[in-house]
Amino acid sequence: MAETSWKGFFLSVFDYKTEKYVIAKNKKVGVLYRVVQLAIIGYIIGWVFLKKKGYQDTEESIQTSVITKLKGVSLTNTSDTGVHLWGPEDYVIPPQGETVFFIITNFIETPNQRLGYCAESFKVPDGLCRENADCQEGDSVIAGHGVKSGRCLKKDRNSTGTCEIYAWCPIERNRRPEQPLLRKAENFTVYIKNFIRFPRFGFSKSNVLETTNDTYFKRCSYHKSRQPYCPIFRLGDLVSWSGHDFQEMALMGGSIGILIEWNCDLDKGYSECNPHYSFARLDVKSSASSITSGYNFRYTRYYKDEAGNSYRTLYKVFGIRFDIMVHGKAGKFNIIPTIINIGSGLALMGAGAFFCDLVLLYMMKKSTFYRERKFECAKNSTKRKGEENTMTEDRGHRKQILERRQLTDLSPEA
Amino acid sequence: MAETSWKGFFLSVFDYKTEKYVIAKNKKVGVLYRVVQLAIIGYIIGWVFLKKKGYQDTEESIQTSVITKLKGVSLTNTSDTGVHLWGPEDYVIPPQGETVFFIITNFIETPNQRLGYCAESFKVPDGLCRENADCQEGDSVIAGHGVKSGRCLKKDRNSTGTCEIYAWCPIERNRRPEQPLLRKAENFTVYIKNFIRFPRFGFSKSNVLETTNDTYFKRCSYHKSRQPYCPIFRLGDLVSWSGHDFQEMALMGGSIGILIEWNCDLDKGYSECNPHYSFARLDVKSSASSITSGYNFRYTRYYKDEAGNSYRTLYKVFGIRFDIMVHGKAGKFNIIPTIINIGSGLALMGAGAFFCDLVLLYMMKKSTFYRERKFECAKNSTKRKGEENTMTEDRGHRKQILERRQLTDLSPEA
Amino acid sequence: MAETSWKGFFLSVFDYKTEKYVIAKNKKVGVLYRVVQLAIIGYIIGWVFLKKKGYQDTEESIQTSVITKLKGVSLTNTSDTGVHLWGPEDYVIPPQGETVFFIITNFIETPNQRLGYCAESFKVPDGLCRENADCQEGDSVIAGHGVKSGRCLKKDRNSTGTCEIYAWCPIERNRRPEQPLLRKAENFTVYIKNFIRFPRFGFSKSNVLETTNDTYFKRCSYHKSRQPYCPIFRLGDLVSWSGHDFQEMALMGGSIGILIEWNCDLDKGYSECNPHYSFARLDVKSSASSITSGYNFRYTRYYKDEAGNSYRTLYKVFGIRFDIMVHGKAGKFNIIPTIINIGSGLALMGAGAFFCDLVLLYMMKKSTFYRERKFECAKNSTKRKGEENTMTEDRGHRKQILERRQLTDLSPEA
Repeated sequence: MAETSWKGFFLSVFDYKTEKYVIAKNKKVGVLYRVVQLAIIGYIIGWVFLKKKGYQDTEESIQTSVITKLKGVSLTNTSDTGVHLWGPEDYVIPPQGETVFFIITNFIETPNQRLGYCAESFKVPDGLCRENADCQEGDSVIAGHGVKSGRCLKKDRNSTGTCEIYAWCPIERNRRPEQPLLRKAENFTVYIKNFIRFPRFGFSKSNVLETTNDTYFKRCSYHKSRQPYCPIFRLGDLVSWSGHDFQEMALMGGSIGILIEWNCDLDKGYSECNPHYSFARLDVKSSASSITSGYNFRYTRYYKDEAGNSYRTLYKVFGIRFDIMVHGKAGKFNIIPTIINIGSGLALMGAGAFFCDLVLLYMMKKSTFYRERKFECAKNSTKRKGEENTMTEDRGHRKQILERRQLTDLSPEA
Repeated sequence: MAETSWKGFFLSVFDYKTEKYVIAKNKKVGVLYRVVQLAIIGYIIGWVFLKKKGYQDTEESIQTSVITKLKGVSLTNTSDTGVHLWGPEDYVIPPQGETVFFIITNFIETPNQRLGYCAESFKVPDGLCRENADCQEGDSVIAGHGVKSGRCLKKDRNSTGTCEIYAWCPIERNRRPEQPLLRKAENFTVYIKNFIRFPRFGFSKSNVLETTNDTYFKRCSYHKSRQPYCPIFRLGDLVSWSGHDFQEMALMGGSIGILIEWNCDLDKGYSECNPHYSFARLDVKSSASSITSGYNFRYTRYYKDEAGNSYRTLYKVFGIRFDIMVHGKAGKFNIIPTIINIGSGLALMGAGAFFCDLVLLYMMKKSTFYRERKFECAKNSTKRKGEENTMTEDRGHRKQILERRQLTDLSPEA
Repeated sequence: MAETSWKGFFLSVFDYKTEKYVIAKNKKVGVLYRVVQLAIIGYIIGWVFLKKKGYQDTEESIQTSVITKLKGVSLTNTSDTGVHLWGPEDYVIPPQGETVFFIITNFIETPNQRLGYCAESFKVPDGLCRENADCQEGDSVIAGHGVKSGRCLKKDRNSTGTCEIYAWCPIERNRRPEQPLLRKAENFTVYIKNFIRFPRFGFSKSNVLETTNDTYFKRCSYHKSRQPYCPIFRLGDLVSWSGHDFQEMALMGGSIGILIEWNCDLDKGYSECNPHYSFARLDVKSSASSITSGYNFRYTRYYKDEAGNSYRTLYKVFGIRFDIMVHGKAGKFNIIPTIINIGSGLALMGAGAFFCDLVLLYMMKKSTFYRERKFECAKNSTKRKGEENTMTEDRGHRKQILERRQLTDLSPEA
């Protein structure tokens, strides 16, 4: 007996149970449901599969290496500081060819500074004074250049002067440049070598043409369609592609982003995985205030004279910072995401059916009728009446059930 | 005929099919199911829509540019190295105002080093020796300062000495500083200019107040609520906001992270997209070992004397590294994620119903009854008995079906 | 009356409605459905829970700080430039111990350059000339070293010469090194201190052993299993672990990525959260062209003589760039993702049922029969015949319904 029961249970486990459906011959909701179904199928095929490539296993953690190298020289000749020859070893900061590099396009040089006493600049609010008491000895000037000596230097008794400070003298002339001294930086070229690697797929590529022709890279220049694998860019082009003017930007400095994108569909093959460059100015040019626009900083070169005393040259340099950002995504067919995406899409159908049910059961004229059909009442009753009675009254369709009962009750009497 | 059949098929395609439901008048499971439904609706509305803003298309690939500038000077005067004036061009490394910058707060200077022969430091294990044989000529000292000359220098015959090395002499005094020489670095200020751009939405903003008042930025100071758009910070504040003490950190160095977050709801408008600053110490202060705490490195300045021979000054500098990290997320209403999120949420309802079914069918007293109601048997039989018989016995409710058969069989006879 | 109706409605809200199922005694589809169910349960448990730890709240925004320090000295002695002693302060660029650092392994030194007139290199295509007219005065040589003076320097009348340029003279000898001068850099060691912090969980850890033994870090060396918490690496090991040869790479330079991964299951405890190191060469070694392989750049040291004139030493340095990349992910049990993941998984069952339905209803022999069972027809008719007739004919099962009608119609007459 127990054996039969277990066997029965075991067999019944493999009975397939499928939802019972009621066919509502309502064309409005029927069409609505088909539209919803088509929308979901369209979403699965069009969006998930074609657009988002949901059948692929994707990797976004790209390993990347960028090496940059600048070429070009420029001669500057100002009455203040004489002749300067600027090569890449001078105008690229830092010189090691990283992903972020700064090109000097303008500068103010203050040579032969020595430690000593001189007057603070008039541009520093904390350095202004009317009497010696304003210049507390030993205090450093806030946002200034040195430490106060305690004396107030002024032209005449009633004027406003500035504190005497212990600093590197002479102090830098705070004069805004009128035009960029390294105008020719527009023609400098930058060579951007970018290697990428997708470790999960063991795929690696570079943005540099694989050629044995040594002179190719000495003469070529990047062109989107003609020479996409010659990553040599003119600085002027980089700036103009970002929608700005090089000479204007060179004056006060700025920041340009170079975005290299690798969207690789590895199902298609090696040659279909290409870098895509885009360029954008990263700092908003606000004409509002001079302090918030441009990009500049200072650096120094230290020397010692025969007596062993230090002196230095101070450079305030203006220029353009280039940020190279590499993004990448690779995808390759994989059965797991394919199945999961199809499944999830189909699961959405349930939501569509739920929505159509709401319309059918509550927004149609004959909603009550459909509700009666859809919902079958089950209540555990102990009435004598037999099987029919176990399916008793839902408050909604009491009348109809009564009719049914009459039918069955009456039949024997006929 | 074929035409009618096709028409019929075509029409039946637009019949709406809806699941047939059995109403189980079981209040326990009914309440449970409503609770599950409410939880799912609450999850969709509260979590997906209000908290995660699931009705928005979001972009996380923010384009950002950070420019930093330090202000402040400090005078140091030690018996060893004389007077030094430290300006931003000296104490900020690297000087170009990047997102990661290091501020010198303490230093050990070793001036006038020249290539020559001197004794290795006693602190280097590999440099210790008892006899000349311990100092193999030409070997470089592991983790040391130079190359062994082959001689062991010691005070007397039985003591342990150190190898003579060819190095930049004199060797740096390995003395831990007792208090930071640039104590006043606490009052230095850093100006952090941050531009962001969300390329997909064409939205850009900066953390700097747009003002034409040139002197505003010379006097203002960041305050979370009063001056959120004056990004000028006192170094001492930055450290104390991260929960540490500047003077303590300045002695041996450390690392501070400045996190700028832009969480922008672009449905709300430009003025609702504001930067949020947070500060954290990135290195755990472990008192355990001296080698693992703090932050220091060495750099040199090279000079040449009249004879053309090189000499140098070696600086071992301790200080605080600031890492500025910019994160951002922007969202804007979009119909596609809205629909997908509603759909996915509703699809979850199926899981809730599945769970309640389990409770109803296997954990209630009257489970057997409900199972009979829920599952209707369909078996393709060839019995003569007519329609009723095609719905034959599930092992579970054989008795009942028998009753039913008796009823229908008997009725005509009554 | 209205009250009763409301009460009734209120009570009926808590009636549980469950789908009515038809049991199809079809073992093939039954087995298929069980397989699908098992696959989904396996996917939920195996993939979502065990593999992806879907019961955890995860955080990927790791806060990290990396400090690096190199140790080791090397002596170079070439006939050209004499004796050099290279310490970390010289061969590490930049010196401040960042996540990206460059180690010089080879160099070409050009000492005592002064501004003046000399001949351009023959390697620069734009510098070649046949007559003075080829050297337009004031033009800078494209990808060259200086500005043309207007004269063409050549050995004899018919040969090709190079333009005379105003540049830092003498010009660097463009000679490829034959073997790395800093061969011994292979034995230099790098100490990598990495602190991480997961702000949401308030968890922080470092890759450095917490010990009070000061000499431990002076003698230990990283070993994956024996000394995982001694982050001191030999440069030669780093390169060989990435699958390359140090001496070969040292000649022309290259780029190595050091990936530190922290995958922390915070349910398991502090000691189970360990760093995992991996190493990869980031630049593909392409033997194709000399310009695209290797890594080199130039830097200078400026001096002034007694007369105040500048001269400089130019270094072209070759070497290896190390990029330290830290990734991390921490997970901790949380009830919300647990429920959502279970729910989503169960919702997938609907898709499985949908698929099995398709098989049952359209691919089985007795499909028509199952379709008749599954779909119950509901059409709002106004016929007198009573309840049975409201369930009218689906075109598919007209015959059967007829049989049923005969049965009920006939019964009273019997």
